[in-house]
Amino acid sequence: MIICDGMGDRPTKVLNRLTPLQAAEAHTFNRIASLGECGIMDVISPGQPPGSDTAHLAIFGYDPYTQYSGRGAYEALGAGVDLKPGDVAFRCNFATVNDKDFIIDRRAGRITTEEAKILAEALKDIKLEDAEPIFVSTTEHRGVLVLRGDKLSRKVSDVDLHEVGVRVSKPRPLDDSVEAEHTARVLEEFIIKSRKILQNHPLNKERVIRGLNPANAVLPRGAGTLPNVKPIHEVWNIKAAAIAGGALYKGVAKALGFDIIHVPGATGTVNTNLKAKVQYTIDALKKYDLVFLHIKATDTVSHDKNPVRKKEVIEWISHEITPLVDLIESQGYYLALTADHTTPSEIGEHRGDPVPLAIMGPNVRRDSVEKFDELSCARGGLCRIRGVDLIKILMNYLDKVPLFGE
Amino acid sequence: MIICDGMGDRPTKVLNRLTPLQAAEAHTFNRIASLGECGIMDVISPGQPPGSDTAHLAIFGYDPYTQYSGRGAYEALGAGVDLKPGDVAFRCNFATVNDKDFIIDRRAGRITTEEAKILAEALKDIKLEDAEPIFVSTTEHRGVLVLRGDKLSRKVSDVDLHEVGVRVSKPRPLDDSVEAEHTARVLEEFIIKSRKILQNHPLNKERVIRGLNPANAVLPRGAGTLPNVKPIHEVWNIKAAAIAGGALYKGVAKALGFDIIHVPGATGTVNTNLKAKVQYTIDALKKYDLVFLHIKATDTVSHDKNPVRKKEVIEWISHEITPLVDLIESQGYYLALTADHTTPSEIGEHRGDPVPLAIMGPNVRRDSVEKFDELSCARGGLCRIRGVDLIKILMNYLDKVPLFGE
Repeated sequence: MIICDGMGDRPTKVLNRLTPLQAAEAHTFNRIASLGECGIMDVISPGQPPGSDTAHLAIFGYDPYTQYSGRGAYEALGAGVDLKPGDVAFRCNFATVNDKDFIIDRRAGRITTEEAKILAEALKDIKLEDAEPIFVSTTEHRGVLVLRGDKLSRKVSDVDLHEVGVRVSKPRPLDDSVEAEHTARVLEEFIIKSRKILQNHPLNKERVIRGLNPANAVLPRGAGTLPNVKPIHEVWNIKAAAIAGGALYKGVAKALGFDIIHVPGATGTVNTNLKAKVQYTIDALKKYDLVFLHIKATDTVSHDKNPVRKKEVIEWISHEITPLVDLIESQGYYLALTADHTTPSEIGEHRGDPVPLAIMGPNVRRDSVEKFDELSCARGGLCRIRGVDLIKILMNYLDKVPLFGE
Repeated sequence: MIICDGMGDRPTKVLNRLTPLQAAEAHTFNRIASLGECGIMDVISPGQPPGSDTAHLAIFGYDPYTQYSGRGAYEALGAGVDLKPGDVAFRCNFATVNDKDFIIDRRAGRITTEEAKILAEALKDIKLEDAEPIFVSTTEHRGVLVLRGDKLSRKVSDVDLHEVGVRVSKPRPLDDSVEAEHTARVLEEFIIKSRKILQNHPLNKERVIRGLNPANAVLPRGAGTLPNVKPIHEVWNIKAAAIAGGALYKGVAKALGFDIIHVPGATGTVNTNLKAKVQYTIDALKKYDLVFLHIKATDTVSHDKNPVRKKEVIEWISHEITPLVDLIESQGYYLALTADHTTPSEIGEHRGDPVPLAIMGPNVRRDSVEKFDELSCARGGLCRIRGVDLIKILMNYLDKVPLFGE
């Protein structure tokens, strides 16, 4: 299963009213469409913009409306934290806050991964009254906070509201439970104590001298707990592996029971080592029934509002996956190529338009679609499906779905 | 409504990568597609292989996820047993078991219908401590057992596990209820007592002398009770009739409130008297709002893994239904032609791929599809629907669906 993040798009002016996929000369993508059955997919439901987390839950067959338990847990798992039931995890940014408590810079002057690591080390000294904090920095200004203790709840508000020029907001309970109130208090204690340590850290003092924004605050958001679900390998009695650069995608996969295959140079950006990811996918297919390959670059250039670059990235991905598609065709494996959501590259944000989908493999009902794009796939033999149904459609081809009834 | 059992298929090698429907010259099927609106249908849900029972529940508008209560009741009704609420019914095979209790032949040397009837007669003498057993033989080695009594449950395990060379398994309760445990005990008592009678029956002794496998055991499976649903004629305020050869299909229809029309020579096999079934359907349309015509032959040849024969059977059915389609067209009736599931004729088992569907009638939005097959129908105006929605789509054309809201 190849998921090109945010690959779905809308007609763009700069590409003469074509979507990047329509404009692209993506020969291997088109080969998949030609060999396969095509359709469009409402990843969550028609018109609903999916988050990256809920989108992947759906694509792996878990109903996000009932089985989503916040983003933080996936980030924490993706960052390598050994999350336990009961833990509440948050995504965090290192940010710059002024002395009147206003947020100046949500990314602390794009602090480097190395600097962030030094600051994260200093935060290990924090002791909280009623919980154990675990803080891990990931890439650049990003990090993860886990609160471990009794009676914690994920029903606490975001401290980072994605805005600058506003005062740092206090964490609030989001329901009437004792647990939510308790967790909001514990989180506030962490924010205050971390602020003190960061403010006085030599690295930040040096940044100020160099005219850079100091990383003097941690802003948590997206509280989440481990989802309480049956792992994918048990649901379908398969071996499943995931290959991704971005921590979130590894995290979702790990939470659902995939083995995570780490690929050197897989960064979750346009500079990822895609050749290596493709080679590791090829190797993984010898041992696993289902391999999930996530490619982030299509989404990154969408958020940068660059349709032309998106077209080029699509052509690059299509070219790079060629050896994998060769193998899949020659071995009689199945391949689903799709996106986790539409990110219109003129808007730069997720939208709820359906995404194109092609499934190739020996037993698919090959249709007449010969190009992999939003419009061509809509004329294909799969018509329009929901994200949550994709995995069962694939498992049906692998003879893994038991009869219902007799 | 014409249901050709298991007619959906996948590309087959022997037919040059076409499905049997694609390869067939089925003029009347294609005429229905040309006159109608076409689509594909997930009988239960995408990728889910339906059983014959759950498939028909869905096609008649009953959600199998909430309204399925086991197969046995349908078999019993189809065999003519006057099933009552509280009864637990089983499908049974006459089988051959050796003196160490191992199953040698699940079909007792394909014992004839006539011989089975004689053995069934002998089983009428069985008295059980806590329930009344009703045993009826149907075709060849097949039969039905009904347990009638207080506090019986359908939550008991199958005794026939579809395997030979294994020991006869003891019926076990499938939940913690007193009723399930009680039913397992009652069922075991029947198995032991029937075994004794069959072992000593002159007909079996004679079979052994002739070198044939004796029918010395009854192996029940598929415990079921009557579904607790509103009958179809009440749901839609219509008169509904069913014409089928196979006992199961008659049973499902009867359980849902259809009148069953018995047709001489309708056998549920490729040797059925299809001409008569078509003529009875034509006659029934004078008296009924909805007539369900079930044709089993497409599934039979699929289970025999014979794509070429399946193509021929499709052509034969298409030819034979021509007078019926003539009548439907001239009278301005509606016709839905579809399948209850896909049975790929290279695999010989049910799979979860969608089935083709065409609906003809005076008010349908006629689309450009001109051939009735899996791929052509997918390009039709119905796009992709679920089985459970079909009946309401038809009733809408008959002005039988009340407004929801005002």
